[in-house]
Amino acid sequence: MKLRYLAPLLAALSAPIFAATQPQQTLTAQQSDPNQLGWMQGFPPSSDKLIRGTDSDYFSFPKLRWSVCHFQQLMPTIEVSRGVKAPLPLTTKLNHGIDDVRFQPLGQQQQMTWRQALDANYTDGLLIMHQGKVVYEYYSGCLHEQGKHAAMSVTKSIIGLLAEILVADGTLDPDASVASLLPQLANSAFADASVRQVMDMTTSLQYSEDYSDPKADVWLYTRAASPLPKPKGYQGPRSYFEYLATVKKDSSAKHGEAFAYKTINTDALGWIISKASGQSPAELLSQRLWQPLGAEQSAYFTVDSIGTPYAGGGLVAGLRDMARIGQLMLNQGQWRGKQVIPAAAVDSITQGGDPEVFARSPYKDLQGWSYRSMWWHSHNEHQAYAARGVHGQTIYVDPTADMVIVRFASFPTPKNAAIDPTSLPAYHAVAQYLMAAAER
Amino acid sequence: MKLRYLAPLLAALSAPIFAATQPQQTLTAQQSDPNQLGWMQGFPPSSDKLIRGTDSDYFSFPKLRWSVCHFQQLMPTIEVSRGVKAPLPLTTKLNHGIDDVRFQPLGQQQQMTWRQALDANYTDGLLIMHQGKVVYEYYSGCLHEQGKHAAMSVTKSIIGLLAEILVADGTLDPDASVASLLPQLANSAFADASVRQVMDMTTSLQYSEDYSDPKADVWLYTRAASPLPKPKGYQGPRSYFEYLATVKKDSSAKHGEAFAYKTINTDALGWIISKASGQSPAELLSQRLWQPLGAEQSAYFTVDSIGTPYAGGGLVAGLRDMARIGQLMLNQGQWRGKQVIPAAAVDSITQGGDPEVFARSPYKDLQGWSYRSMWWHSHNEHQAYAARGVHGQTIYVDPTADMVIVRFASFPTPKNAAIDPTSLPAYHAVAQYLMAAAER
Repeated sequence: MKLRYLAPLLAALSAPIFAATQPQQTLTAQQSDPNQLGWMQGFPPSSDKLIRGTDSDYFSFPKLRWSVCHFQQLMPTIEVSRGVKAPLPLTTKLNHGIDDVRFQPLGQQQQMTWRQALDANYTDGLLIMHQGKVVYEYYSGCLHEQGKHAAMSVTKSIIGLLAEILVADGTLDPDASVASLLPQLANSAFADASVRQVMDMTTSLQYSEDYSDPKADVWLYTRAASPLPKPKGYQGPRSYFEYLATVKKDSSAKHGEAFAYKTINTDALGWIISKASGQSPAELLSQRLWQPLGAEQSAYFTVDSIGTPYAGGGLVAGLRDMARIGQLMLNQGQWRGKQVIPAAAVDSITQGGDPEVFARSPYKDLQGWSYRSMWWHSHNEHQAYAARGVHGQTIYVDPTADMVIVRFASFPTPKNAAIDPTSLPAYHAVAQYLMAAAER
Repeated sequence: MKLRYLAPLLAALSAPIFAATQPQQTLTAQQSDPNQLGWMQGFPPSSDKLIRGTDSDYFSFPKLRWSVCHFQQLMPTIEVSRGVKAPLPLTTKLNHGIDDVRFQPLGQQQQMTWRQALDANYTDGLLIMHQGKVVYEYYSGCLHEQGKHAAMSVTKSIIGLLAEILVADGTLDPDASVASLLPQLANSAFADASVRQVMDMTTSLQYSEDYSDPKADVWLYTRAASPLPKPKGYQGPRSYFEYLATVKKDSSAKHGEAFAYKTINTDALGWIISKASGQSPAELLSQRLWQPLGAEQSAYFTVDSIGTPYAGGGLVAGLRDMARIGQLMLNQGQWRGKQVIPAAAVDSITQGGDPEVFARSPYKDLQGWSYRSMWWHSHNEHQAYAARGVHGQTIYVDPTADMVIVRFASFPTPKNAAIDPTSLPAYHAVAQYLMAAAER
């Protein structure tokens, strides 16, 4: 079976999010703007401007700059309902000085302005909240205020937050073994892992994401996840659930020893929270966050053939609604004066994980950081923490500066290591700028 | 290529909507309730409760009772955005006497109550507006106030309304030939048809919907429309647009002579309005109706492999939002005191079509009715007119009674001829009941 449909997407989503650099001779953000390139324009679009979900390259640059906003028409999805009430609008008080904030990109000689960084990062949407108000809002490429964008692995952090809500509720025991909750996983690597180990990705899993190896596990996973018809004679797993049951332990490591970033942990966690709550991640996200936060738009997840939301990376949402999540984190679960989720759920995340366990990961970027409940913690002087997804997606929360930054992007290559040098120092510079402005 | 994915859906949608009777020994509405039958419940659902978009029977009774609410997770779709503002809520003033209204079903001896008719028709949702207020609202089966339901061929009427809006705007000339607007159709049957003939389905098209004939045109259409990968060596059309270009004339008839209900007219009209407006039916519906009406939920269309909305029957929407359309028709294009669409667009529809042209159709039900701009006109004493879709979908507007009825249903068989006997007289009885109540 050739790569089709979900394959290119999953490949990108599951990619290690470290290492690699920006390709040379790549089209710039302006040059690759999907509106300029004319993807899918016209009735019908000309044949060289068509993008189909069954194309093997729909998630390759530059087509991905269109596709990140259009997953719903490329594959089956499931709605995260905002309900039917009026949205709770965000308050806006724009700060026009932000574009000129200067910062020093990591490893570079020249300073850069915030505005320059937007294009350097192929930014599709960026929103900054400070002291609870929108101080900056930007759309480009395929995104606009009524549009939605793939959140990629930021999805994982949302699933982690839902798990922490269930833990704080007493609905989910983080010390329980996975097999005690999901007998279907009794013969898999997950069986004797604790829910906490799954949440923190310290499980020991035999799971290769080596895309150059046609027998790598990621291809089996991709085939299992695809909602397309299976080839004749296919006997393998036909859903995320069935795939997870086949995962074996990595004999060289024990659960709990080291952080190991593997997307399938989040799919296992999606299953765990479904079992514990009786609701799918899509229903749970709607009921626990999207509706109480008064989201402006319903969101959606991509799904497998049995409608299971892709917990590892399938969320697609509006920019302002992602900002609501960041602000809720900053507010320790309060929204408009109401405690809409338990403060304990947020506290568990914001304390961060164990940096030593993190340091034992094979990845060597983000030194000094940690990972807890699918969120990345910088342990920097501002105690900033983040949700991070390939191609530049993020929710970045800086509690010290009372600031949230949400970014959607379609950077040509998946790895954030290529994007961080012009992002992380920019975020910190804006935080300092806003703190100084607030003091004046 | 076997029937898969869109095939069962298109088969049902394209079915002649007349003739046929209810099958015997069919499960009742209660017995076939999708929640009771347990479709897709659990994590994962048991194998005998699974419904996949690639199953050949997902749109067969009783599975269709679940599927009508879940197209988004069964296949690719495209959003009809409600925008991001607050919905404009409907005002509710329930009338509790409606359930007891009695009527005489066509061709039956026994009277029936309104409430009994709901189950007899496998009703999933029903809303009645009278004098601009919601007087009745009912959900069952797979539907609830935050859910969406397939509108089937009610979609056609919405597309017809959009076309009339463009005509009233001066953006679309109803007398223009199709080929003058769409050169791609110059060698097809549509070429010398006028836009008006397409809108009224009086075109002469060689297009068979005989499902027992494996070479029937509907199967070619189905294959073209499917967003699934095409089988190796497939050389046929790969989109609605490409299929439409292949349609030949019916040598036994001329354009304009007779009404002939063929779904592909609406797909041609969808293309025509896209070309005229520069917007796809999904964008146009969002901008012209969904946003100005303050819809509660975004809707969506199913799509082909290049993201073309299925104008012939692919709309899926919330019950209250469909009621907004009916009420807008009743109000001659006004909404909350504002003329949101031209009154002329509504007037063109409500005048009805030519009953003689209608009578020349091969179908012999609905005697005395007519068809104009994809709406059905009863020409009864109340001058009621309707949008009608297989399995019981309707928007029924009774201007004399100042009443709109919107129904979503999942009747076991597609044809409305089996549903009309317990629907049309019930609608008329409720209209009379509400008129009498208003006089008191």
